[in-house]
Amino acid sequence: VRNTTIGVFDSGFGGLTVLKALLEVIPDAEYLYFGDTARLPYGSKSVETVARYAREAARFLEQQGAELLVIACNTATALALEQIRQAASVKVLGVIEPGAQRASAASQSRKVVVVGTEATISSHAYQKALAAVQIESREKACPLLVPLVEEGWVEHAVTEQVARIYLDEAFCDGFSSADVLLLGCTHYPLLKPILHRVVPENVTLVDSAESVALAALNLMVSGTSNAEPGQLDGVKTLGVRLSDPSHLRFFVTDSVEKFRRLGTRFLGQEIRDITHVDLKE
Amino acid sequence: VRNTTIGVFDSGFGGLTVLKALLEVIPDAEYLYFGDTARLPYGSKSVETVARYAREAARFLEQQGAELLVIACNTATALALEQIRQAASVKVLGVIEPGAQRASAASQSRKVVVVGTEATISSHAYQKALAAVQIESREKACPLLVPLVEEGWVEHAVTEQVARIYLDEAFCDGFSSADVLLLGCTHYPLLKPILHRVVPENVTLVDSAESVALAALNLMVSGTSNAEPGQLDGVKTLGVRLSDPSHLRFFVTDSVEKFRRLGTRFLGQEIRDITHVDLKE
Repeated sequence: VRNTTIGVFDSGFGGLTVLKALLEVIPDAEYLYFGDTARLPYGSKSVETVARYAREAARFLEQQGAELLVIACNTATALALEQIRQAASVKVLGVIEPGAQRASAASQSRKVVVVGTEATISSHAYQKALAAVQIESREKACPLLVPLVEEGWVEHAVTEQVARIYLDEAFCDGFSSADVLLLGCTHYPLLKPILHRVVPENVTLVDSAESVALAALNLMVSGTSNAEPGQLDGVKTLGVRLSDPSHLRFFVTDSVEKFRRLGTRFLGQEIRDITHVDLKE
Repeated sequence: VRNTTIGVFDSGFGGLTVLKALLEVIPDAEYLYFGDTARLPYGSKSVETVARYAREAARFLEQQGAELLVIACNTATALALEQIRQAASVKVLGVIEPGAQRASAASQSRKVVVVGTEATISSHAYQKALAAVQIESREKACPLLVPLVEEGWVEHAVTEQVARIYLDEAFCDGFSSADVLLLGCTHYPLLKPILHRVVPENVTLVDSAESVALAALNLMVSGTSNAEPGQLDGVKTLGVRLSDPSHLRFFVTDSVEKFRRLGTRFLGQEIRDITHVDLKE
């Protein structure tokens, strides 16, 4: 595990919650983070466009030395995981399958509500992944939650009201008995306190950022990303530590300064080594 | 005026409110609309990135036959108007100067509040344009309003609450006497009913979409975009008519189907002739 170089790819900042989770469970790896900030958000774009951007990013991270790719973007995973795998020569891990497996482990009622961007939800990638583990799901697009997080309103009454509108529409009819809310967007972990307040009391929040980090550890240790729940729980107790920043390198397609400023909020620690890159289409 | 080909450029859908205003005042022109939907929004991107995208779009519209370019995107105007003018061989009109002139004509107190995206506001382009016509301005970034419009919540209680939070912070201290709200974003005309409700009663809403359309007419008729207010008022009474769709051609960098669906809301009429284009960086 030590000194393995892990490439993490996202359309922008949200993937930093995945990097944060990776640093908790695999603190000794080297990390390359690519944020395609000039072309974000992917959540409102078509499958062709997202797939093209994602292939370019994967190629870039491999050129920089990544030995494992983590697609820390739900939209890119939902729309283009197979295309990225075909284009890459290293192992590629997406956020959706690990999230679905964790949701399955957490659900008694076998009914799960999934929230995400318009593109992620329209792809029905979570619905398919959950159906494969015998979970019935209701998918709900929540396009306002990302802008609210980026505005910094993570504990704001307006955000709670918006979340309540979205989730009341989801936890009803056949899904009032759903007992898991699967966060299918890497911005949403910042909204956990609000989301806890607006869902029914017995609902467990499953965070795809945590799930993919644990799947990455499992892949590196055992060669499979299908972790058993007990195994993952053990790993979780490792807890947080601030990582040596020399193990972290960041590449962004838009302003370095803006990434430094906004990114800190998502990663929970200072972001230092940022390089601006231009990807030719 | 008849048969002149006008190229209208925007990062996405918002510029359709400018096209709508243009169709009202110059109904006989031919229109080419370029929406850079694969790379929207520009509002959160850096000046270098926006300038590069805007130059590419301008070049494309000229190649398609545009004889006049209207930059229907506040962010692109704020960040890159001069760069676009240098790259173009036809006349180029931005939204900001016409908006500032209309605001000046409407203001008694000589104090104006400007709202727009983060990038537009950070550029202080409106502040400079308003200072040039002896108007003191307060600029307020309202990053949540575009996502709220795109969610379709144009008459929603949440949107009114968000607008009230933003505008209460603007119409205070030295600016409680401001008597014009300048809409420095082409999405905002759809929020006029809500904005009217949340600003002080005596405040006039000035719409940069309308302003640039009138400036374009003036440029074509008299060779200058500096219209006198009386002249513009006469033009305004021409009113709306549905345009012959054969005079409208649309080019987008992302999904044609999504543009047709969302765009209709902004243009107020059906959108037919849409072509997908790829701009190489």
